[in-house]
Amino acid sequence: MILKRYLLAPGPTPIPPEVLLSMAMPIIHHRSPDFLPILDSAKKGLQWIYQTKNDVLILCSTGTGGMVAAVNNFFSPGEKVLVINGGKFGERWLKIAQSYGLDVLEISVEWGYSVDINRVEEELKKNPDIKGVFVQASETSTGVYHDVEAIGKIVKNYEDTIFIVDAISALLAHDIKTDEWSIDVMIGGSQKGFMLPPGLAFISVSEKAWRRNEKSKMPRFYFNLKKEREALAKNQTNFTSAVSLIIGLNEAIKLMQKEGLENIFRRHATLSYATREAVKELGLSLFPKGIPSNALTAIEAPEGIDGQVIYKTLREKHGVTAAGGQDKLRGRIFRIAHLGYADKFDVLVGIVALEMTLKELGYPVKLGKGVAKAEEIFYEEEKSENFSK
Amino acid sequence: MILKRYLLAPGPTPIPPEVLLSMAMPIIHHRSPDFLPILDSAKKGLQWIYQTKNDVLILCSTGTGGMVAAVNNFFSPGEKVLVINGGKFGERWLKIAQSYGLDVLEISVEWGYSVDINRVEEELKKNPDIKGVFVQASETSTGVYHDVEAIGKIVKNYEDTIFIVDAISALLAHDIKTDEWSIDVMIGGSQKGFMLPPGLAFISVSEKAWRRNEKSKMPRFYFNLKKEREALAKNQTNFTSAVSLIIGLNEAIKLMQKEGLENIFRRHATLSYATREAVKELGLSLFPKGIPSNALTAIEAPEGIDGQVIYKTLREKHGVTAAGGQDKLRGRIFRIAHLGYADKFDVLVGIVALEMTLKELGYPVKLGKGVAKAEEIFYEEEKSENFSK
Repeated sequence: MILKRYLLAPGPTPIPPEVLLSMAMPIIHHRSPDFLPILDSAKKGLQWIYQTKNDVLILCSTGTGGMVAAVNNFFSPGEKVLVINGGKFGERWLKIAQSYGLDVLEISVEWGYSVDINRVEEELKKNPDIKGVFVQASETSTGVYHDVEAIGKIVKNYEDTIFIVDAISALLAHDIKTDEWSIDVMIGGSQKGFMLPPGLAFISVSEKAWRRNEKSKMPRFYFNLKKEREALAKNQTNFTSAVSLIIGLNEAIKLMQKEGLENIFRRHATLSYATREAVKELGLSLFPKGIPSNALTAIEAPEGIDGQVIYKTLREKHGVTAAGGQDKLRGRIFRIAHLGYADKFDVLVGIVALEMTLKELGYPVKLGKGVAKAEEIFYEEEKSENFSK
Repeated sequence: MILKRYLLAPGPTPIPPEVLLSMAMPIIHHRSPDFLPILDSAKKGLQWIYQTKNDVLILCSTGTGGMVAAVNNFFSPGEKVLVINGGKFGERWLKIAQSYGLDVLEISVEWGYSVDINRVEEELKKNPDIKGVFVQASETSTGVYHDVEAIGKIVKNYEDTIFIVDAISALLAHDIKTDEWSIDVMIGGSQKGFMLPPGLAFISVSEKAWRRNEKSKMPRFYFNLKKEREALAKNQTNFTSAVSLIIGLNEAIKLMQKEGLENIFRRHATLSYATREAVKELGLSLFPKGIPSNALTAIEAPEGIDGQVIYKTLREKHGVTAAGGQDKLRGRIFRIAHLGYADKFDVLVGIVALEMTLKELGYPVKLGKGVAKAEEIFYEEEKSENFSK
């Protein structure tokens, strides 16, 4: 049979055709009057998505560039920071902070678990000189969500300590209230919930964080957030704007505004819930023991089956690109995303492909059992949606 | 009359429709078998364009990110470097090197002139502890080319000194032989001769430069060229690849390979020569007193006419987006580019729009005089091209 391609990976995620075509228009100049209103509208759209009145700066880089900017702009070498590390991207916070000479305390969280909020509180009490607390909202490597709202409530009591959230895979999949939850710096990436190609990072900065920026001494040039702020006030970026990606961003924002933030969050919650329930129906175990992320579902490979073989079979036999496990989880888990431009049929495709894959690999599965479960959930959800109208 | 739009700015430059549409295809995953051959072929194409056997690394950033990577990866704070500064982008080398704590010597070149090679030789003799020499091949702010071949011959005699060239606007407009000319590190940017949107920087690294990289001590994470080299060997990038831009790069490389490097260089030489001659025919003065760049032509605004008004009239009345002057040249010059996806008709559009603009602004011009000159040059060029077949 013809093998159509389906992308169910946690980034890049599928891009709506309207967005793809907007970026295929002849390019325009980034300092010209054509572009300024586009950047202005993208800027406002980002504030809407972030639920913030603060600046949300646009960087031409991957999400990691945004993480580097967060370390590079608010601290000085030797200053103490606290990293909550529960996966590959927690490790990345650790490595970035160390490579910039910060004095890094670590809360090591077992992979698959959400951080115990009490440990954050204790660490801050013991070390009131901690200047920044770093965490992932959704840790993409484990499919786990950390309760950033609760952490924000703790950190905000420390006058000179800022709270920095990597929300790269969480943004738009979870309702994250930047200002209300006292998140000082939050990073997003274009190829996730934003339904865009990779190449843009977003970073919000609170007034509390700008005060730390004033004192921060570290070599920086490309990721200079103060200069980005000055440029953004004039609807520009400090260096050449990634014109086509920002045009795409603007188009994606229009689609999101049509759907509405509440509906976007609810959609991700429903898609991930249906995936989890369908997978359990097949007798598989979810990897997260903590709060599951709505961006992706991490699933344990059944006894005796290599997670990488599941990933490869999904891809090669069924055209479905999901994700395997990273680093120490390689072979142990596989991951199915429902992030960005995803609807119920994407989940159903993923579950059907998974059922067939498992059966092919000798795992006892009754075809259609997981799908039926997901379908029921979608049916009930749509009934209640109609009811609520 | 309907106002069609023409882009004659020195970046972003026009993008061929084949390239635009290749980037509008559904996105694929950067670590999947779909993408690896694309990156492999882009990698080889870049080596072909750079005329090098060295690695050409692909960064997700603007060209400035590539410049920062060059400063950040090969030196340690306090080390002495020499910056040749003859314009806005020479100043950028200066600022980046200073912000990373290097001990910066400067050869200040009057804007509009090419560097006097003897000064480079003298400076290196006086300071044999200079570890790096920085220059622009084409200084976009002044439209001037610096003789990087001659500088390369000098720097190569110093065992522990590397030669770093910002070729962002020069690449593909000029024949630059990275290896033959002993250029250790050379930076390119996607939105220039490469006929792509902004978002990628390219950077070649010689074995001599890698030896300096081994000794270099500076905080770095996003622009870590050693890690990029390791990733590229596996047809990956260190962080998420800018998938759509690299797909576009691959498509642009195919077009360039069809045309051939020699023809691309000759085309840029012809387009820029015709522009210069046409402009002189109108009685205007070229801004460069040194070697003119083939990427763009910088033209002095005639006595009593503001260069910014020329830029604006070109745009608003004729749909032609060229460029004004930057910083201290604002109002004094305007710039017309012929970089990347440009042919004879782009030049003719620019000259006609310029003739009409000048006449509207009260400058005495005989309509058609400049165009006729350019047309003659193209006619002769094509005759000789045919003859050579």
